[in-house]
Amino acid sequence: MTMDLASDLMAALRAAIGDDFVKQGSDIPVKHWSDATEMTPVCPKALLLPGSTAEVSAVLALCFKAGQPVVIQGGLTGLAAGAQPQEGEIALSLQRLNGIEEIDIESRTMIAFAGTPLHVIHEEAQKVGLHYGVDLGARGSCTIGGNVATNAGGVQAVRYGVTRRNVLGLEAVLSDGTVLTGLNKMLKNNTGYDWPQLMIGSEGTLGVITRVSLSLSPAPPAFQTALCAVSGVADAAAVLGRLEQIFPGRLVTFEGMWREYMDVTAKLGTLAEPFAERPEITLLIEAALGDGQEGQDLLAEALSTLMEEGRVQDAVLAQSLQDRQRFWAYREANYEFHHIMPAGEHFDISLPMNVMDAAIAHMRAATASEMPGSTFIAYGHMADSNLHLAVYPDASANDAAGSKAIVYDAVGMFKGSISAEHGIGMLKRPYLSRSRTPAELALMKSLKQTFDPAAILNRDRIFAAG
Amino acid sequence: MTMDLASDLMAALRAAIGDDFVKQGSDIPVKHWSDATEMTPVCPKALLLPGSTAEVSAVLALCFKAGQPVVIQGGLTGLAAGAQPQEGEIALSLQRLNGIEEIDIESRTMIAFAGTPLHVIHEEAQKVGLHYGVDLGARGSCTIGGNVATNAGGVQAVRYGVTRRNVLGLEAVLSDGTVLTGLNKMLKNNTGYDWPQLMIGSEGTLGVITRVSLSLSPAPPAFQTALCAVSGVADAAAVLGRLEQIFPGRLVTFEGMWREYMDVTAKLGTLAEPFAERPEITLLIEAALGDGQEGQDLLAEALSTLMEEGRVQDAVLAQSLQDRQRFWAYREANYEFHHIMPAGEHFDISLPMNVMDAAIAHMRAATASEMPGSTFIAYGHMADSNLHLAVYPDASANDAAGSKAIVYDAVGMFKGSISAEHGIGMLKRPYLSRSRTPAELALMKSLKQTFDPAAILNRDRIFAAG
Repeated sequence: MTMDLASDLMAALRAAIGDDFVKQGSDIPVKHWSDATEMTPVCPKALLLPGSTAEVSAVLALCFKAGQPVVIQGGLTGLAAGAQPQEGEIALSLQRLNGIEEIDIESRTMIAFAGTPLHVIHEEAQKVGLHYGVDLGARGSCTIGGNVATNAGGVQAVRYGVTRRNVLGLEAVLSDGTVLTGLNKMLKNNTGYDWPQLMIGSEGTLGVITRVSLSLSPAPPAFQTALCAVSGVADAAAVLGRLEQIFPGRLVTFEGMWREYMDVTAKLGTLAEPFAERPEITLLIEAALGDGQEGQDLLAEALSTLMEEGRVQDAVLAQSLQDRQRFWAYREANYEFHHIMPAGEHFDISLPMNVMDAAIAHMRAATASEMPGSTFIAYGHMADSNLHLAVYPDASANDAAGSKAIVYDAVGMFKGSISAEHGIGMLKRPYLSRSRTPAELALMKSLKQTFDPAAILNRDRIFAAG
Repeated sequence: MTMDLASDLMAALRAAIGDDFVKQGSDIPVKHWSDATEMTPVCPKALLLPGSTAEVSAVLALCFKAGQPVVIQGGLTGLAAGAQPQEGEIALSLQRLNGIEEIDIESRTMIAFAGTPLHVIHEEAQKVGLHYGVDLGARGSCTIGGNVATNAGGVQAVRYGVTRRNVLGLEAVLSDGTVLTGLNKMLKNNTGYDWPQLMIGSEGTLGVITRVSLSLSPAPPAFQTALCAVSGVADAAAVLGRLEQIFPGRLVTFEGMWREYMDVTAKLGTLAEPFAERPEITLLIEAALGDGQEGQDLLAEALSTLMEEGRVQDAVLAQSLQDRQRFWAYREANYEFHHIMPAGEHFDISLPMNVMDAAIAHMRAATASEMPGSTFIAYGHMADSNLHLAVYPDASANDAAGSKAIVYDAVGMFKGSISAEHGIGMLKRPYLSRSRTPAELALMKSLKQTFDPAAILNRDRIFAAG
């Protein structure tokens, strides 16, 4: 684009949504220079802040005509460099499309604008006795549009599924400005291709989500919390199956922390040991059994049964809110590991439950042999097959980048996923072929071409343009 | 195509999968001439019975080169003329791709070939203490591939969702013979576009599903069954919400039968009246509370509470298996209506719960005024927004076709769906625009072009070719 064309585009964008909402240069807040991936910040060419679906359509139509690449920004909490600007991109932020349009108590649905923070979705549902089933650590700043675009998972997927399961419909704007409105509110609706399903998890590469129609659930009873010691994945899987049998529909959280994770947690020195002996896996379990003694007794009885059956080695129940917070503190200790560990390499993978033990043993052995002195830790949303891994190099080594080959090779070998819930973005693009066949990748590129023929939307995310 | 090219194609098809599995003329069993839609049977040009994914690929590649239209057939239980042949089409049946490839108990997943009947999926899951969550009346003959291709719903969707929610991955063959294998077994897997999601519910127009990866659940406790009398949709919605609050994750069936449905059922003369006074809606409810007195007491207590709260007017609990069968007989009485009613027009629609009362009142009034003497009945999977309607004309009238305009206009007006679970096929194609915008329809046609550029797969289903 020549300078004149570029300035023409800026003038047209300003005319479309107003001078106050097209920012350039030093007027662009630094937070829009990066997402949460910890890459070098890049100032976008401009920041657009449209205030309606019509304005999103207007600015995209202009960028489409100009062949101007656009990076889409929600709450900027992504960890795969999806919303991180590249040189020359214009950033389109959904932050002004913020708020709840409708809560329909009879249909148990909510229609929200894409820029609404997740915690607002939770709070507004709670006010009418309902519940939105996706919850994640970034709830305070991530937005529902970003959650849908990345098919966010989180800590209650064992009960409520990932974001996909909680979305009934969408409104989205295609790269040429076409507005697609499919704000379905019904559980059953088989009327041609369910295009919103393709948009969910497409990381902003197929269109800009502007509104979402969400399915809400009845508010669950209060949660009971426990830590359990188990000897490996087979026992953990058995515990998962038995708990869902004993309390159908009540198990809401089932997280695993492997031995080395608890070793590093112990080194932090802030949390007492939960068990006399450190088990292979420490499970954090929550079940919606109601507060008070009755709920606690139900969980205690179930865990006693599982101990008698030899599946659980030891268990401890939260007796108070303080206990519950302390139990969660083990699971969230990883946020503190950087204080005592060298810079590590972090992963967000899935592995089928039946090969999880073998895959972890393989990666443990490979990091030990190829990266002597390194520390390999595993933890995460075990019931969803979703593990977070980190590999910390020996203090004398430069970095942990070599662990990428070990982990992604193992993911390929065990037919796992290189991205469970964070997405591909620009960060994991080189490894996508470990989880997808050439035929699948070719189809994905055809779909990108169909939706975004000029490749202006989140270019180079998921796969390289051209 | 000239005669020579046509005979060349047949010879090539025979060479690809063997003479025994390419049938023509009188060798084609009559069951392959139609599905369950009750249209005039059409003998397909040939019947192909491939025995593997590779053979499906081989025959599609040949048909693609020849521009030969192909109709895909599973269990032939569809009600929207999706698998009904058109003149000149070759039928491709998946019946030989039949069987379970893997049940993974730890991962709670099953990989099955597309032609496996639904009841086999249920039985094989049960054998290992697991449960497949989609159940429908056609379970004995419908196939899992057809269920996935049409996103089948059924009677347990309030608990387990529609087929989409129970599918983790697919293998499918594109029209040119390309094999796409994405047999994911993990709940969380965000690695680019989830193309199986687009294939689910696309009614065979985008590809031929050959294998499916299903998510299984722990086997639920035995069901308790009740009939409830309620005064309207608002109370029914309140009952639904309260039961899910009282028994989270235990409510498996929530069906509604409106007054006129019970009037016609009474005329059959085979079933005693469940209530002293006929209510606006009779609900059939099942909850997985375990068998025996304890489960029955739990349901009785919940229904007492709802009667005290004024939501339920009357209720009756099944005390035995015979009672349960009798309660279901009300819900299945519609299969007998044709014995005493004239030929009617049947519908499978969805309506958001908050407008269901108003929409039904509107359609009742419109059929009464525009089709004097007609009978309008409504029943179905109420918790899923899914109603089945039938309009029977007055005995002196010729037919009930005029009701299509009334029902589909109301669906459009109340933002419902013209097809909740049966799909569009050829039958409802003229009405698709009542539930989809022009922009959505244009996108769907682009997607069809991307997947099936020669439009050989289930041509004219969902929308007309070209």
